[in-house]
Amino acid sequence: MAVLTGQKRSKISRFSAAPVRVPTPCTCRPRACSLGTELARRGYGLVYGGGNVGLMGAVAEAVVAGGGSVVGVIPAALAPRELSGVSIGQVIVVDDMHARKAEMSSRADAFIAMPGGMGTWEELVEIMTWQQLAIHDKPIALLNVNGFYDHFVALIENTVNEGFIRPHHKGMLLVASDPVALLDKLPAHKAVVPYAQLNWNCK
Amino acid sequence: MAVLTGQKRSKISRFSAAPVRVPTPCTCRPRACSLGTELARRGYGLVYGGGNVGLMGAVAEAVVAGGGSVVGVIPAALAPRELSGVSIGQVIVVDDMHARKAEMSSRADAFIAMPGGMGTWEELVEIMTWQQLAIHDKPIALLNVNGFYDHFVALIENTVNEGFIRPHHKGMLLVASDPVALLDKLPAHKAVVPYAQLNWNCK
Ligand SMILES: [Mg+2]
Repeated sequence: MAVLTGQKRSKISRFSAAPVRVPTPCTCRPRACSLGTELARRGYGLVYGGGNVGLMGAVAEAVVAGGGSVVGVIPAALAPRELSGVSIGQVIVVDDMHARKAEMSSRADAFIAMPGGMGTWEELVEIMTWQQLAIHDKPIALLNVNGFYDHFVALIENTVNEGFIRPHHKGMLLVASDPVALLDKLPAHKAVVPYAQLNWNCK
Repeated sequence: MAVLTGQKRSKISRFSAAPVRVPTPCTCRPRACSLGTELARRGYGLVYGGGNVGLMGAVAEAVVAGGGSVVGVIPAALAPRELSGVSIGQVIVVDDMHARKAEMSSRADAFIAMPGGMGTWEELVEIMTWQQLAIHDKPIALLNVNGFYDHFVALIENTVNEGFIRPHHKGMLLVASDPVALLDKLPAHKAVVPYAQLNWNCK
């Protein structure tokens, strides 16, 4: 599942902020739209956290506009808040945040994080730990719009130097400021050697 | 559960790195020991991820040495790797990482993160998102040894400025470089107003 070949059925799961209103004018929104357009152009589908607000909604709308398929996975408790108005693509309602992430990750062939708050970071870091633990080997990419994630990248660098992250593990995160450049990196992704091969009895 | 009054039964849950060997000499280890000693002196118990390696083990050993109680919560799949040799305090074996976090968070009265890698960050950020979502209202503290987490603090600051984190939410994270100063902050903690009151049907 690690190689994206551009076949029409590939799904990319994208994490980004929905809960907080994106400020206007937000420099991130054009990149979100470009990402969605580019995903559709390359034949990728989108799996995301559902809803039509924030950057999440902007990407999903652009994918649909480009003829791509979109699946939104949303916990029942968040549905009234995040789904403000029209839902985009297919909507799957799940019980809780854990079920949402499990559903998204099993359907995805790659993960892309855009600028966002703590909910976004939590999903990004969790999917990175899952690769360290050999739960998946899919590409993980960071759309670093206007240096939004520079401090995160520096934190990783510093943590490698301090010995808490293995040097080859920092390579699991693909980083680019532009959607085209970022998507270009996905097919060449090689999964990092995990911290350990563990038996999780995962579904 | 938000106020720590120093009663003998308070448990503090602490996240820190175990998987990667802590480099020698690690400037973090003395602070880890100080934290454990100080927890015990103040009558706090410790709930942690189990094992006796890394900074995790150092804190747990110091708590026990100071007469404090320690509970380790460890997933079965990690037990052979993390529990290298003698286990510390009471050990609870759970099915998976999700069960570990649920168990730790339900037993804790506060959360402290020490320097660590992605596993540590994931636990820290997740517990912060849970406060945003009104799942808990317990203090969350960051032991910022030698500026280890400066980039993380800067990321939060920048993200507030970009509008993806609400300004009052950054106050949920208590930060200090010294264990005594950090623990001094806990009793005055006030839970932030969550993003939303949601019905999670949580246990
Ligand atoms: Mg998580």
